[in-house]
Amino acid sequence: MSDFNQPLGGNEMPRFGGPATMMRLPTQETAAGLDAAFIGVPLDVGTSNRPGARLGPRQIRDESRMLRPYNMATRAAPFDSLQVADIGDVPINTFHLPKSMDIITAFYDEVLAHGCTPLTLGGDHTVTLPILRAIAKRHGPVGLIHVDAHADVNDHMFGESIAHGTPIRRAQEEGLLDSRRVVQIGLRGTGYAADDFDWCRDQGFRVMTAEQCWYKSLEPLMGEVREQMGDGPVYITFDIDGLDPSVAPGTGTVEAGGLTMPQGLEIVRGAWGLNVVGGDLMEVAPPYDPSGNTALMGATLLYEMLCVLPGVMRRN
Amino acid sequence: MSDFNQPLGGNEMPRFGGPATMMRLPTQETAAGLDAAFIGVPLDVGTSNRPGARLGPRQIRDESRMLRPYNMATRAAPFDSLQVADIGDVPINTFHLPKSMDIITAFYDEVLAHGCTPLTLGGDHTVTLPILRAIAKRHGPVGLIHVDAHADVNDHMFGESIAHGTPIRRAQEEGLLDSRRVVQIGLRGTGYAADDFDWCRDQGFRVMTAEQCWYKSLEPLMGEVREQMGDGPVYITFDIDGLDPSVAPGTGTVEAGGLTMPQGLEIVRGAWGLNVVGGDLMEVAPPYDPSGNTALMGATLLYEMLCVLPGVMRRN
Amino acid sequence: MSDFNQPLGGNEMPRFGGPATMMRLPTQETAAGLDAAFIGVPLDVGTSNRPGARLGPRQIRDESRMLRPYNMATRAAPFDSLQVADIGDVPINTFHLPKSMDIITAFYDEVLAHGCTPLTLGGDHTVTLPILRAIAKRHGPVGLIHVDAHADVNDHMFGESIAHGTPIRRAQEEGLLDSRRVVQIGLRGTGYAADDFDWCRDQGFRVMTAEQCWYKSLEPLMGEVREQMGDGPVYITFDIDGLDPSVAPGTGTVEAGGLTMPQGLEIVRGAWGLNVVGGDLMEVAPPYDPSGNTALMGATLLYEMLCVLPGVMRRN
Amino acid sequence: MSDFNQPLGGNEMPRFGGPATMMRLPTQETAAGLDAAFIGVPLDVGTSNRPGARLGPRQIRDESRMLRPYNMATRAAPFDSLQVADIGDVPINTFHLPKSMDIITAFYDEVLAHGCTPLTLGGDHTVTLPILRAIAKRHGPVGLIHVDAHADVNDHMFGESIAHGTPIRRAQEEGLLDSRRVVQIGLRGTGYAADDFDWCRDQGFRVMTAEQCWYKSLEPLMGEVREQMGDGPVYITFDIDGLDPSVAPGTGTVEAGGLTMPQGLEIVRGAWGLNVVGGDLMEVAPPYDPSGNTALMGATLLYEMLCVLPGVMRRN
Amino acid sequence: MSDFNQPLGGNEMPRFGGPATMMRLPTQETAAGLDAAFIGVPLDVGTSNRPGARLGPRQIRDESRMLRPYNMATRAAPFDSLQVADIGDVPINTFHLPKSMDIITAFYDEVLAHGCTPLTLGGDHTVTLPILRAIAKRHGPVGLIHVDAHADVNDHMFGESIAHGTPIRRAQEEGLLDSRRVVQIGLRGTGYAADDFDWCRDQGFRVMTAEQCWYKSLEPLMGEVREQMGDGPVYITFDIDGLDPSVAPGTGTVEAGGLTMPQGLEIVRGAWGLNVVGGDLMEVAPPYDPSGNTALMGATLLYEMLCVLPGVMRRN
Amino acid sequence: MSDFNQPLGGNEMPRFGGPATMMRLPTQETAAGLDAAFIGVPLDVGTSNRPGARLGPRQIRDESRMLRPYNMATRAAPFDSLQVADIGDVPINTFHLPKSMDIITAFYDEVLAHGCTPLTLGGDHTVTLPILRAIAKRHGPVGLIHVDAHADVNDHMFGESIAHGTPIRRAQEEGLLDSRRVVQIGLRGTGYAADDFDWCRDQGFRVMTAEQCWYKSLEPLMGEVREQMGDGPVYITFDIDGLDPSVAPGTGTVEAGGLTMPQGLEIVRGAWGLNVVGGDLMEVAPPYDPSGNTALMGATLLYEMLCVLPGVMRRN
Repeated sequence: MSDFNQPLGGNEMPRFGGPATMMRLPTQETAAGLDAAFIGVPLDVGTSNRPGARLGPRQIRDESRMLRPYNMATRAAPFDSLQVADIGDVPINTFHLPKSMDIITAFYDEVLAHGCTPLTLGGDHTVTLPILRAIAKRHGPVGLIHVDAHADVNDHMFGESIAHGTPIRRAQEEGLLDSRRVVQIGLRGTGYAADDFDWCRDQGFRVMTAEQCWYKSLEPLMGEVREQMGDGPVYITFDIDGLDPSVAPGTGTVEAGGLTMPQGLEIVRGAWGLNVVGGDLMEVAPPYDPSGNTALMGATLLYEMLCVLPGVMRRN
Repeated sequence: MSDFNQPLGGNEMPRFGGPATMMRLPTQETAAGLDAAFIGVPLDVGTSNRPGARLGPRQIRDESRMLRPYNMATRAAPFDSLQVADIGDVPINTFHLPKSMDIITAFYDEVLAHGCTPLTLGGDHTVTLPILRAIAKRHGPVGLIHVDAHADVNDHMFGESIAHGTPIRRAQEEGLLDSRRVVQIGLRGTGYAADDFDWCRDQGFRVMTAEQCWYKSLEPLMGEVREQMGDGPVYITFDIDGLDPSVAPGTGTVEAGGLTMPQGLEIVRGAWGLNVVGGDLMEVAPPYDPSGNTALMGATLLYEMLCVLPGVMRRN
Repeated sequence: MSDFNQPLGGNEMPRFGGPATMMRLPTQETAAGLDAAFIGVPLDVGTSNRPGARLGPRQIRDESRMLRPYNMATRAAPFDSLQVADIGDVPINTFHLPKSMDIITAFYDEVLAHGCTPLTLGGDHTVTLPILRAIAKRHGPVGLIHVDAHADVNDHMFGESIAHGTPIRRAQEEGLLDSRRVVQIGLRGTGYAADDFDWCRDQGFRVMTAEQCWYKSLEPLMGEVREQMGDGPVYITFDIDGLDPSVAPGTGTVEAGGLTMPQGLEIVRGAWGLNVVGGDLMEVAPPYDPSGNTALMGATLLYEMLCVLPGVMRRN
Repeated sequence: MSDFNQPLGGNEMPRFGGPATMMRLPTQETAAGLDAAFIGVPLDVGTSNRPGARLGPRQIRDESRMLRPYNMATRAAPFDSLQVADIGDVPINTFHLPKSMDIITAFYDEVLAHGCTPLTLGGDHTVTLPILRAIAKRHGPVGLIHVDAHADVNDHMFGESIAHGTPIRRAQEEGLLDSRRVVQIGLRGTGYAADDFDWCRDQGFRVMTAEQCWYKSLEPLMGEVREQMGDGPVYITFDIDGLDPSVAPGTGTVEAGGLTMPQGLEIVRGAWGLNVVGGDLMEVAPPYDPSGNTALMGATLLYEMLCVLPGVMRRN
Repeated sequence: MSDFNQPLGGNEMPRFGGPATMMRLPTQETAAGLDAAFIGVPLDVGTSNRPGARLGPRQIRDESRMLRPYNMATRAAPFDSLQVADIGDVPINTFHLPKSMDIITAFYDEVLAHGCTPLTLGGDHTVTLPILRAIAKRHGPVGLIHVDAHADVNDHMFGESIAHGTPIRRAQEEGLLDSRRVVQIGLRGTGYAADDFDWCRDQGFRVMTAEQCWYKSLEPLMGEVREQMGDGPVYITFDIDGLDPSVAPGTGTVEAGGLTMPQGLEIVRGAWGLNVVGGDLMEVAPPYDPSGNTALMGATLLYEMLCVLPGVMRRN
Repeated sequence: MSDFNQPLGGNEMPRFGGPATMMRLPTQETAAGLDAAFIGVPLDVGTSNRPGARLGPRQIRDESRMLRPYNMATRAAPFDSLQVADIGDVPINTFHLPKSMDIITAFYDEVLAHGCTPLTLGGDHTVTLPILRAIAKRHGPVGLIHVDAHADVNDHMFGESIAHGTPIRRAQEEGLLDSRRVVQIGLRGTGYAADDFDWCRDQGFRVMTAEQCWYKSLEPLMGEVREQMGDGPVYITFDIDGLDPSVAPGTGTVEAGGLTMPQGLEIVRGAWGLNVVGGDLMEVAPPYDPSGNTALMGATLLYEMLCVLPGVMRRN
């Protein structure tokens, strides 16, 4: 018997029953005593096209019921050595986006004060900025593994500095990132200026467009990324729209020609061995995929993030 | 400040966030200390046509997030005087329907031993039988307010005595019902024999077909039902398919020409003043209504059942 | 044991299995030996807005699996006294609407030559014209009970005389109707000229707009209709869009404020005692109602038409 | 030949083609020269539960292609005497709800300066407040016909004064309403306090709960409302959730037991003869009704508002 | 003119019409005289997560209408040399999973007694066990080509030996498999123990995880599999969840990162030349893919199985 | 400031607002003054299986709102050097397919007379024939890049020469194609005769089956295609069903195992440098993909066609 929280098993309660928490894990009010916590941030008022990511945390949790404790591919056994729980949602102010920024940062400050690693169920990508503010306060500027169709480095959107297309620019400007240790994977689509991705390159970020990823395993890339990241703290932010719309139809700002799910899995699994200090999975918008499969892909990627946290053991 | 559990309010946490429990109420493992409990029974292997009711409890809870504490129509304030929680799901055996019967009865025996009134989120209608077995053990034969498109008095289905078309017959045979105090409302559709509903009448049940209900308020009917029920214990079993398919498309065995939602509300509200010892809302099958509205109708009817439990006060 | 074909019962084969024929009845290639036949006409190239009615016959048959042999409301037992089968679909030419007209009429000529009463699963409303041509050849001009949101008396649509908005005008012009014995029920919506329905009235048709039907039982109306129809042959054509969109969302040309399902049932049941020589149920368009419930409403109305055919007995 | 703009007819362009403007009317950039204008306000960041109303204007326009120019029920012929166009959308700031308020008011100030009557395609109900601000500037405090499940008189939501649950309270506080000439129809559901609707009554508003409307025609009510409204300016605000969820599933904050579509039509038609100075149709949220029927109900109600504007003639 | 049954062609009956049988083939009651038969087994009470596979046979048949007789890729012409029909569904007992096992085996005993090769439309994967029992009675232990996300070698599920996660274990224990001739392709996901797949390897099965298949053609693998299978009898069991959820969203127990459709086709086509004695396609759950495409993928794979049966000729 | 029409930007109007034109471009009635025009042809009565492509132009335009002006992958900046507008839909006769052929050709004759390059939003593939008739009148026989699951070279369908399975055969017979400069990419599936694709090869067409494309970049192929096409005029016709159903579920005649979206993008991008005189994107059928993503894939491919028109510059 483990001393650690375990996901409720399918032989104790049918998978379609039991609590609608992440992986049917126990809940607790704070992060006290936890090594890692799943946290929902049901905010989507930073979205520029189709809304719905506010319902992402609920559906990701619901669909996560399919996930069993052990990782058959990597033999990681996260619940053998980490205390993990679902600590619920951040009470964002859906009527005032700027105010929500501070609510989120304060919540993560508290989580981090417990020495707990946050794994976030988004919510739109605006949410990554206030999380990075808290992360950088504790860990200093971080390396970033950023999977996305969009660079999210707009200066403004409709005149506003805070929106789901600006968080990486804001983070860089605020010194939250260690810019030599940033990689953006899956960028593609159309833009306002042909050189949009060049701003990223000018900051020293590594940019891997989707086109550079087509038709091949990303394991070699991740070997290079591990070198790039070194020993410093690393944050993983995964926008589900980095994946191809065939894999993740349920999202708000869809772009053609994205990553396959194997590539998505390789990216997260490729972070094994790094000093991962947090991760998030953003932009699951349930109304556009009633099958729930997009949310399950999101839940799976969050589980894979858990499996690469420092301290997770792999069974023989 | 109330001493009783309160649903999490929309000004503390946006409605699309927070725990996916019934009405965002607190959870607890047992019924100890509760006046009433919401319980899920995610069983649908008793279904004869479209499956999916196993997912009913999860979706009813999810959609119940819209429900606020007070009843604007009846001025009932259930959380002013009752201690209520969501105590989760019964761990049914989905691979063996007969075995699940005993699991359910045992669960309800325990709930009733705490003096707690159960309000059940189904699940298919088979589930009502094992609940009634527990109820009758504690309260003796009960009066029954049964809303449904189907009489559920088949002798057998495919040779089996336990299925979602037989619970009322079994209950009657087993002496769980006080047959002069049974009313069935909304019956309709096609059958194997023209006299199917006559068996019910022969038992002394009052049968109100859907046709008898069309175009009119059921308040007068409920006045008569209250007389019929008297002071004895009453159980309410509400199959969502009693409602018209336009109101509740998400169910498994659909029949044309059912009750309107106002009629459904009048039936439950009309039980005010009776000695209600339990209630259930059955047969919400989420796959056939991705909008979630069927589940919300179900959640609303469960809330209205809570509002007519003995001891609930109405504000001026 | 009956000598007549019986729908495959749910105790012999689960309702979700068995042949996807109307009511899971046996099929045969021709109408020989039949009193009544269900026939599909998968044509929708006469549709002016959303297509999909070509898939209506398949989905109506699929969903008709819920229908049992006896009518609980009217005690009609159609399979006690009529030989009924599903004789499949008319092989229409989907690439050429005018040519399809003759294919359909020829098919019905053959069916009627066997003395068999056709009950048609549409298909868009254009189909009613070639059926009426065959019907009138055999029975002379018929009385018509026409349920619809639209009068379908356009002179032309986009310059064409054959389309789903013209069949009643063509039928009247061609002398297929006994114009003193025509009633149109459920008409409503918007038009090109405020007097569109007046053309109908000028022909001697009785027009009951939807507004005239709101909030009340149509049993009194049907008493009058039975008087109007007298002993002559009567054809029933039921466009599913006569019903309110809440009841029948899956159709192509939706109009607000239609009939309720109880009203739809009352209309068909109210034809009991008339000399019904055929009937059809048109314009079920499956893509707009994946729940299948619109198709089930259609299947139910076709079953109710079967129940009012001359020769059907009612059990005590 | 009319001198007025006409909706593009189905005999000139199939209904499934042509411009996706309201009723396939011509567009123009400003309200200059118009008697009435359809305007979209794609804002939903004031929504407290399910988002999606930002997509309402697009889907309402798309589905409005079914609407023909004349009103068969009332014989109103709005395009015989009014110059009407679709003037597009207000460029709201989706990342900052309070800022959007002023953008909207400024847009309507401009429209009203042209002497044009605005008919608005929402958007969530927050939008009605900035419209009323412009309306009252021009017309003084207005009478209000408010159809809704919710009174929308919250003092605050999550601490904010601007949200979709507060516009009527704000409007009353700001003196935009003539409080003896306000009627709210369809209110129902659950609340935070049993006396929520009492605040409305205390202001002098007439409150007709949904329960008071069940099972009956609202024509008598509208006779009384016309008396209440007198000759003063009247604004109609119609939240689609005032209708029953069976009729309008595609909305964000669903409540059981609402108005039927006939009742909705009677309310708007009942405003005939009043001095209607504007109207809106709010809270159509397309993701929850892919059939498009909710949007078509909304489009129909907007068309009916057009039909009761002063100056619209009715044909004999 | 062929002497063999032919699928009804699109030039005789539009594809959206005609009988809803597999490939619109003729039906017959028994397998007498058939070389191969399509059989539906509408059972899903062995499912541990989302139900719906009971509706798989109906939807697979419906969508199979797109399939024409010849295989453009392999030039196989199955209807040139085999007599094939659709013999309908096995009348399983949906209320009692264990009893259904014997019903299914008895049905297949009868089919096999006619020397007919069964191709099964599932239904959940539990169904493969009773089929293999019949197969092994006739052919002895068989080689197995098993495509799946899951190994299906659980010892028990919720204490039961019969469920959709156990059939391969039961088959191996009962000696139905020639364990040196078993290959499992596509395994992946999460498990209860990191070594779950090791049990398979311990039996001598070849295990190809999904990860081993990513990014490449499986033609080389199938060359090896043909060597492994040799001349002995081979059964193909294809769980549609072996494919990636993007390809086959409509299934009950979804796992990320599966096979592409080209890989699925290569596997079945790669069985050409083997002594294939039967095949099945399992776990299509229609409610989660209303587009029908998952069912069409399933129908296509069943057709490809038909194309590799011994005796099928390939045209030049 | 450009002198050319620009798509309405997301910072001027939220993407979910603004006109539902292609890329939110301005509209005009004719092609006068345009270098390129987007044109809708809402015809689907040539479809042999599932209808719905008539709604394709509307949904492609709606979803195209996500497209920004510049191409991040190719650095093409079409709006820097071309005058582009959306000129609306061709008013086809939906009740008479043959008549529609001439309507379409006449419309394109007029467009081409302005020297404008047409980019067509289909509509089913029948539409390509009348377009090619106009194209060949102006440019002579053209090279053709044809992406499709089907060769579309049927001699007849149901006896008709005009249908969506015949346009390429008719075009070849009529001398509209330069048969040494025709390539068909993505062909696959089942057929009536094993040699269907051989007819194409006999004409001198290059046939690349889907199987020949699996698992690899099509850049090398497109190098060869550019050689094949040389300097002569080239038309691109892209049937969305050439893509895999996972990428483009919303289409009428689905075939397993198609092209990936990266391959689709490579094909169109690979036409850079050719003398492209027109292009079309066909067979998007919205009812089968309510998410809208299929339409967005179609819109993206049309945008990519715009980006390879002669005269489009690429930014550094």
